[in-house]
Amino acid sequence: MECQLEEKKVSKVGTKETSLLIDSDVHPYIVSLNELVPYMDESLQRRMRLGRFQQSHNVKNNYYREFKIPSSHYENIGPLQGMRLDAVPPSGNLPGSDQEYLRSDLLDRTNTTFAILNAGHGTMSAHHNVDLAAEYNSAYNDWLYHEWIIKDKRFKMTILVTPLDPNLAIKEIERVGKREGCVGINLQNINIPLGKRHFYPIYEIAEKYNLPIVLHPDAEGSGEYSPSQAVGPASTYIEWHSSLSLVAQRQIMSLVFEGVFERFPKLKVVFIEYGFSWLPSVMWRMDKNWKGLREEVPWVKKLPSEYVRNNIRLGTQPSEEPFHPKDLIEIIRMAKAEDMLLYSSDYPHWDGDPIDKVFKHFPQDMKNKIFYQNAKDTFHL
Amino acid sequence: MECQLEEKKVSKVGTKETSLLIDSDVHPYIVSLNELVPYMDESLQRRMRLGRFQQSHNVKNNYYREFKIPSSHYENIGPLQGMRLDAVPPSGNLPGSDQEYLRSDLLDRTNTTFAILNAGHGTMSAHHNVDLAAEYNSAYNDWLYHEWIIKDKRFKMTILVTPLDPNLAIKEIERVGKREGCVGINLQNINIPLGKRHFYPIYEIAEKYNLPIVLHPDAEGSGEYSPSQAVGPASTYIEWHSSLSLVAQRQIMSLVFEGVFERFPKLKVVFIEYGFSWLPSVMWRMDKNWKGLREEVPWVKKLPSEYVRNNIRLGTQPSEEPFHPKDLIEIIRMAKAEDMLLYSSDYPHWDGDPIDKVFKHFPQDMKNKIFYQNAKDTFHL
Repeated sequence: MECQLEEKKVSKVGTKETSLLIDSDVHPYIVSLNELVPYMDESLQRRMRLGRFQQSHNVKNNYYREFKIPSSHYENIGPLQGMRLDAVPPSGNLPGSDQEYLRSDLLDRTNTTFAILNAGHGTMSAHHNVDLAAEYNSAYNDWLYHEWIIKDKRFKMTILVTPLDPNLAIKEIERVGKREGCVGINLQNINIPLGKRHFYPIYEIAEKYNLPIVLHPDAEGSGEYSPSQAVGPASTYIEWHSSLSLVAQRQIMSLVFEGVFERFPKLKVVFIEYGFSWLPSVMWRMDKNWKGLREEVPWVKKLPSEYVRNNIRLGTQPSEEPFHPKDLIEIIRMAKAEDMLLYSSDYPHWDGDPIDKVFKHFPQDMKNKIFYQNAKDTFHL
Repeated sequence: MECQLEEKKVSKVGTKETSLLIDSDVHPYIVSLNELVPYMDESLQRRMRLGRFQQSHNVKNNYYREFKIPSSHYENIGPLQGMRLDAVPPSGNLPGSDQEYLRSDLLDRTNTTFAILNAGHGTMSAHHNVDLAAEYNSAYNDWLYHEWIIKDKRFKMTILVTPLDPNLAIKEIERVGKREGCVGINLQNINIPLGKRHFYPIYEIAEKYNLPIVLHPDAEGSGEYSPSQAVGPASTYIEWHSSLSLVAQRQIMSLVFEGVFERFPKLKVVFIEYGFSWLPSVMWRMDKNWKGLREEVPWVKKLPSEYVRNNIRLGTQPSEEPFHPKDLIEIIRMAKAEDMLLYSSDYPHWDGDPIDKVFKHFPQDMKNKIFYQNAKDTFHL
């Protein structure tokens, strides 16, 4: 619990019923990769053509040699490619890049106690050059820590690590994982299911450091090691974005049936931005199959849905919108999921959930859990 | 409507409430591929090493040269690898292979009006040699028609066609699609999403012939063109089987967002054996995205859920089993899906649904639709 908490008793729009709110998904933005230069050694600057290595061959507008962070091949058609227009700061700069404005526009206005910052653009997770990716992650983690986290105790962060090399991931967790304000490991989905042994060294240190694993869309559709959307590639952003929920469902099946949560019983895996109304069908299908086939997976000792409830957490956003709004509460009841959901604004992205609309009909005790208690327990705040 | 209908008024176990039942998924089995020899020309027999081309080199037990129909790499651990023990006929032969026994054990006992026969083992859909696959399909379609369909008017069949070559698929539909008792096209999932233009020639003839497209698990995990399970391969049968539902969800997103149902408004696409309780989350997620992003897909003129309700049909099996059984009815209400579901026994497979248990709490008018009317309308029976 932070000292600033006590100062925040004024209730604001959307959270009238509570003075405590943890937002599990806020995206800080870099305007130029050159902001990372102070946190990079020269070899990395050279590889990424940054700092004094930019335009090193004296050709004007040499944009095609620019280093490009891998980002999804599917582009949102909105005017700001997936950013909220109302999140543009007075400077006219990129939403999420102006720390002062983000504080007033998001934290103060919604009376946020803590905001978990997850890297807001591109990712090196599915990049073919794993060493380069790991070095970039270190620079990014240092930038985020020094430029944001230590400046406001409301800011917390997840650590970027590469999922393609568990040893390099462990080194980075050992380097920064105990810093105050580092509350989770941003792992990212690649084309290796999360239940495979490849990831176990990361889970081991995550459990030891008491840090939840956080998955957030970014690597999907971005590179050579990007996870598939099942069947084959989508044709449009709308189709790709709709399919994202399937990635989380598939990963949960992999984690549970491989017995990851028997091996790492304290591990928490948080899926942010994959929705949650698919949860009953996934739990029921896995439970039914376990009743018939558990001889095949003797290491799965309990009903799959019990592992899901104990070890999986889900961001609320983008919340599905039922034909009848109250059916969302019914879905949560059906899955017994009220301890599993973490409120997430996804600020400054286009598909964020308005807190005063989505949760309007939710009972107060459910709101207390979703807005505060669940994230407090998950991130040890 | 068939003449035999009138004779079937005696109510039996599980269908006491209705004298009309259509079973949309029953699997006839071949005991040996040699049963197909009368329906194959010599070149195909030679390629598949059947008939007089079997053991052609006089080596005993030359099993490694046997032709193998591609089947899933994931094997059910049950005593009969996914078959019901109680479906073994008195002869001790493979379940589903004894027509007399299947009639008495399934059709008579559950008072079935019509049973849709879908090929019950392996598939050539994801086989690398498309010409071979197409010829095999023709032999299979002829075998099923002559050995089963014309022998009992309760039997109806779907036609096997190759999804890898639409022109060959069309030829086969033109050849057998108007035979009495051929009520659908068994297309199978491959690694090309169903919304892609590749498939449109097949949809065109399907609409013209008034035949629904039927998708049923088989190609998944079976070959070089098998569809992925999202993220990456499962490790066990239980994980693979649980993931199957994601394939249907992904295909529905592809079909809707590519505008297939604007182009082919009368087309029906039936997903048999992928479950259905994921339907609300898929509809809600697609509708929400359409509200925000429809500018990207101007050919999608209505809410995605409207296309789903008009053009998609789902087999009931394997029905998910909620913590509270009545929640399954709630899920159907939430998705407004009572006109979309087709009762399927999946006989003689292990994961079939007992009709007297799964639908116990369903209101009578919903049962009438799911047990009879929906399939009658879909397959034009």
